[in-house]
Formats: sequence, C-alpha cells, structure tokens
Amino acid sequence: MQYVNSINDQGIVTVRLSRGKVNALNETVIDEMAGCLKELAGDAGAKAVIITGTGKFFTFGFDIPEFLGYPKESFIRYLTKFTDLCTYLFLYPKPVVAALNGHTIAGGCMLAIACDYRIMVPGKAKISLNEINFGSSLFWGSVAMMKLLLGQRTAERALYTGTMYSAEEAYRIGLIDQISSEVDLEGEAKKIASQYAEKDAAAFKSIKKLLRGTVAEEIMKREREAILEFVDIWYSESTWKNLQGKNIHS
Amino acid sequence: MQYVNSINDQGIVTVRLSRGKVNALNETVIDEMAGCLKELAGDAGAKAVIITGTGKFFTFGFDIPEFLGYPKESFIRYLTKFTDLCTYLFLYPKPVVAALNGHTIAGGCMLAIACDYRIMVPGKAKISLNEINFGSSLFWGSVAMMKLLLGQRTAERALYTGTMYSAEEAYRIGLIDQISSEVDLEGEAKKIASQYAEKDAAAFKSIKKLLRGTVAEEIMKREREAILEFVDIWYSESTWKNLQGKNIHS
Amino acid sequence: MQYVNSINDQGIVTVRLSRGKVNALNETVIDEMAGCLKELAGDAGAKAVIITGTGKFFTFGFDIPEFLGYPKESFIRYLTKFTDLCTYLFLYPKPVVAALNGHTIAGGCMLAIACDYRIMVPGKAKISLNEINFGSSLFWGSVAMMKLLLGQRTAERALYTGTMYSAEEAYRIGLIDQISSEVDLEGEAKKIASQYAEKDAAAFKSIKKLLRGTVAEEIMKREREAILEFVDIWYSESTWKNLQGKNIHS
Repeated sequence: MQYVNSINDQGIVTVRLSRGKVNALNETVIDEMAGCLKELAGDAGAKAVIITGTGKFFTFGFDIPEFLGYPKESFIRYLTKFTDLCTYLFLYPKPVVAALNGHTIAGGCMLAIACDYRIMVPGKAKISLNEINFGSSLFWGSVAMMKLLLGQRTAERALYTGTMYSAEEAYRIGLIDQISSEVDLEGEAKKIASQYAEKDAAAFKSIKKLLRGTVAEEIMKREREAILEFVDIWYSESTWKNLQGKNIHS
Repeated sequence: MQYVNSINDQGIVTVRLSRGKVNALNETVIDEMAGCLKELAGDAGAKAVIITGTGKFFTFGFDIPEFLGYPKESFIRYLTKFTDLCTYLFLYPKPVVAALNGHTIAGGCMLAIACDYRIMVPGKAKISLNEINFGSSLFWGSVAMMKLLLGQRTAERALYTGTMYSAEEAYRIGLIDQISSEVDLEGEAKKIASQYAEKDAAAFKSIKKLLRGTVAEEIMKREREAILEFVDIWYSESTWKNLQGKNIHS
Repeated sequence: MQYVNSINDQGIVTVRLSRGKVNALNETVIDEMAGCLKELAGDAGAKAVIITGTGKFFTFGFDIPEFLGYPKESFIRYLTKFTDLCTYLFLYPKPVVAALNGHTIAGGCMLAIACDYRIMVPGKAKISLNEINFGSSLFWGSVAMMKLLLGQRTAERALYTGTMYSAEEAYRIGLIDQISSEVDLEGEAKKIASQYAEKDAAAFKSIKKLLRGTVAEEIMKREREAILEFVDIWYSESTWKNLQGKNIHS
C-alpha cells in the first residue's frame, strides 16, 4: 500500500495514514484504508485498531486541488466510497481509537467521529467540520454522528459556524475524549485500545450494534440523496469559486 | 397586517409580534406570521430573520379566553395551523434568531424552540412549557424539539414540572443560547443573525435539513394524532375548569 | 405474593422487592412485579409508584445460578418477560420513582433506568450495566434508555467499560437524579412522587407518551432479535465459563 500502513503490536494494530504534508484524502487513500480495515476485521490476531496520521496532520481532509479536476461522476464515486468508509468505521466490529496527532479537518474529522474514542494533541492542532465556510454542505452520516456526540444544539452551533476547535475546546464540548501530549499520544491510545480489547469480542460487537445499528441503518438509507445534494452545491458557481481559491488542501 | 410587522435592515429582517399587552396568539396572529415568513423565504433580500415581541412579553401563549368560545373543529383548525408554523420554522431555509424580549410561555416557548438561536433578557421574564400545570398535554413537535435541545432527561424534568425558568436557569440547561440586557437585545440578535447570514445560503439550508430533516418528517407524520389527543384532554372536565379559571392569557 | 409487596400511603404506592440477600431477579419476581404494576395502573387510588428494594441491594440483577440450570427456551421466555417489564415501566401511565436503596446492578439498573426519576443512597452502593465484564451482551431497550439518559458518548463509555458508578459519579453523568441518605431515602422518594402525583393524570400520561412513545415502539420492534443475539452470546463457551465462575448473583 502506498499511503496507509499497519503494524500489529500484541493485538493492537496501528493504522497510519501518510500522504504528503497534510495527509490529504483521495480515492487511493480511501481504498487503501477500507482494504486495510476489512482485512483486520477478519484477522483474529487484531483485537483493536488505532487510526492515526503523520507529522502535524491527522488529515486536512479531501484533496481539493485533485478533485477540482474530476468529472462529476468520478467525484460522486469517490464520495460514495468515502461515506461508505465512515459508516463502516462507525459500525466496525472491533474497538477503534483515533489518535489525532494534529489537524483533523473536514473529511478528517468525519473519520475521527466514526471511531469509538478520540485522543488529541494539545496546542495548535484544530479539529473542525468547517465545510460551511467554503460554501459546502455535509453528509447525512457525519451530521448524524456529530449530533450523537455533541447533542443537537452544540452540533448545530459547530456546523453553522464551522468553528476550528483546539483540543481543549473540543474536549469541553465532547468532540474528543482525551488530550495527550504528542510524545504520549500513541502510548495513551494503546492503553485505551488495550482496555477495550480485553473485553469479550462478541459482546463488544453486539453492544456496539445495539448502540449504533439503528443510526447506521438510517445513514445507509439516506446517504445517497445527501451526496447528490452535496455535489450540486459543490459545483455551484459560488462554492466552486471558493474551492478554486483554496491554495491549501481541506 | 394587524399584529405582525417586519423591517429589513441590510438583509436582516426583524419580524415583530404586537398584540395587546401579552401578545396572545390567535389564528390571525398565526396566519400573519406564517404569511410573513413565507414571503421572506422567497425574498432574496432577506438573509436572516429575527423574531421578537413587544413590551414585557415575547408571547404569553395561546389566547385562552378567545379559544374557550371556539367550537372544537375551529380549535383543531387553529392547532393545525399553529403546529404547522412551528414545523415550518424548525426547517426554515434561512437562519432564524429568537430575540426573547420578555415572558416566553407555552405557545411562545414552542415558537422560540423552533428557531436556530435564542437570546433572552435577564430579570423577571420567564420561559416555560407549563402546560401540565393547567392539565393540558403538548404537541409531538414541541416535545421533540425540547428533547433535541435539552436531552431527554432534562426535557422530561421541564415538561413534568412545568417549571418557569429565568433566563439564567434557561441558559444553564440549554433552553436559550445567550442572555442579553433589554437595551442590547436587538443589537445582539442582529450580530448573531449577521454571522449566520454571511454563510453560503445553499450550504446553510442543506446542512439545516441534514440536522433537522428526519425529525421534521417524523413530526409531520405524528402531529395530527397528537393534536387530537391534546384536544380530548383540553375539553376534559378538569382541564376545562382550569382553563376557565385562568383570568390571564397563557 | 412471595417477593414483592406494595403499600399505598395516601395515593403513593411503594412497591418493594425482597428476595434473599441480594434481591436476585427470577421469573417469579418479574411475574409478581409486572402483576403488581398492572393492578396499580388500573387503581384510581394509586397516583404514583415508588419502586425500591431491601437491605444493601436494590437488586444485584439476574439470578445467574438459577438461570444456569435453565434450558435455552425457558431462558428466552424469562428474558422476554423481563424486557417486556422494562418497556412497560418505560411507558407506565403513572409517575414512577426508583428509590435505589443499595447496589443496582445489571438487570437492576435496567429496571431503574425505565423509571421517571432515580434517587440513590451514597456510600458503597454501586449502579452499573456491567454485562460486558462477564462477556454478556445487552438488550435493545436498555441500551436505548441509557442513550436517552446519558447521551450517546457517555452511554458508550459506560457500556464498553462496565464501570460500577457510586451515587456521586452516577449523579454527575445523569444516571441518577438525586442522592439521599439511607434514612431520608423513602421520604425524599415520597416527596418527588407526590409532586408528580399532583399533576393532571391524563396530561401526565399523554406527555409521557409524547416523550417516550416513539422509542418504545422501536424497542418493541427490535427487542426480540436482540434477545436472540443475547442468548447466543450467553451460551457461548467463553461467556458460559465466566457465568459459572460467578459465585455471586449479578
């Protein structure tokens, strides 16, 4: 695999994303991450998963410059794969800890909120679903997951303002579960993953389905329509202009 | 219009209710408010809406003395229009800020919780869904909106006790988003409305539908049955006696 | 009745569970409790209900040693009755206060979270849905009720860790509503029950249905499947071994 690697340390598997400076997401990244997770789902030696990034970024989100060159159908295909991955993660049969080593923006935040537990580094790193600030809509699943995590009122505030939260602010509103220094991040993530991994695997999977299954069903029913509306707005004149103006990934 | 007027100040439209001392709601008020909002929905010059009242009242709720003279079918027609307005506000395609200038009781609270943001004056003003205290039930949509805002447990407490919350208490439980002195209220409401109005209109509308659309569908499916049960209880002997005893609107 | 007795004190009926040292739940207990509640539902002299236990236990949950001797079909029949009781309590037409006089574990916690208000004694007593720690799954309704009470994130944490909460911790996360010393517990429960009992009975019942009816419908639709999965895991090799190793009820 080109952008995703995984290491199994005594049953705790760290899946690391590494693509350029900001770990921008494109179709290859999503294919690789989905492939890796599907393999680990069937691997009895994998008890729990940690997802993390590299450098100062977990991921800054979609590789917008790349997508600006896509025909619409290709973009829809990518979005379908991406939202499928989010839903798959949301119901993943094993515990998943997100070790947020840096900026966790847009698509990056969508991956993070589908996990079971989030640890983030303090300091300059931000976490945000900031789509509204470049005139983009969101996906049904990601909005549903934000509502579950933050409650309706705080989720509305977060999505309408597109606020970039520091780890401290994100902790306060419940968007992350723990703050850990860069140096301790992976150790803390392994500690939590190990605690979850000690539980009976069948009971964990069953309880997770009870906790999230109904929402996941609803996501699967409604995501296609949301993607089509997302795409309509993405290719609208004003949003397209914003996207072209972004000289950074997001 | 007799009881509702609107003023557009640089795209921020203030819709003000003004009817007698307590701004009691009747069918004409609801028709006027619905008409005004529908017009603004299609007006490209209206970027965001502020709803407010006059004097010491946002509104004290339904005009009970007037409704006591209604035949049952007329009351059902009114309730249908009223709950339709609440649902319409809940999904309104533009940002709506409630500037709660005073008491926000019963039907008044139902309108307020359908908005996107609530600012309330401190002091003697109260906000409450106090229906249980005169033996009345509630509507499906208003209960759903309270659950979304406060969470199930706090919503249950609020509706079973009918507590009259001060702005400070309402802020603490999440029933309002901000407290502002009487003199600053409209300025603060305009500040918030302007922040929301700066966002891409199509993205805002789409994200709002993702946040609230499923609940709104459920409201539309279930409200009719709730209205009929509400009416049965309203005309029951004990509740009717309570209503006749109320020499103030509520 | 053998294990459940009820006393009506001016319309407030205390239903007390008393079976052995830990008030372990079996089919007879559930039959008696369901019978008692159904009778009180139709009794105009019963305005509100308090459910409590005896000694140092509200209840420690299912009588596991007894169930280990059950054939699978009998266990399914018991679980169906038990979850039916939880759902019935959740929608009970009169106010129900849980006076948690001691440990409130597993099945005991499931009964408690179906009530309208929970008061618990401080000190050594714990409250927990700790099923995951002996490799057991849970029920659809109990998970749904935990999500309603605590919000998704805290519910996930509670159910994945199986944490045993003291009254103080349970209060902080919203799992109980009030802490009261052993000596004041029943007095406090009566005070709350009386406040609820003062409200119009038809309005209370109607508002409770608006608050909980949709979730209850969903529980009824999904519980059967959850019970069958629960049973599969219960009789799995690893969980069965855990259950046999438990020399206490749970």
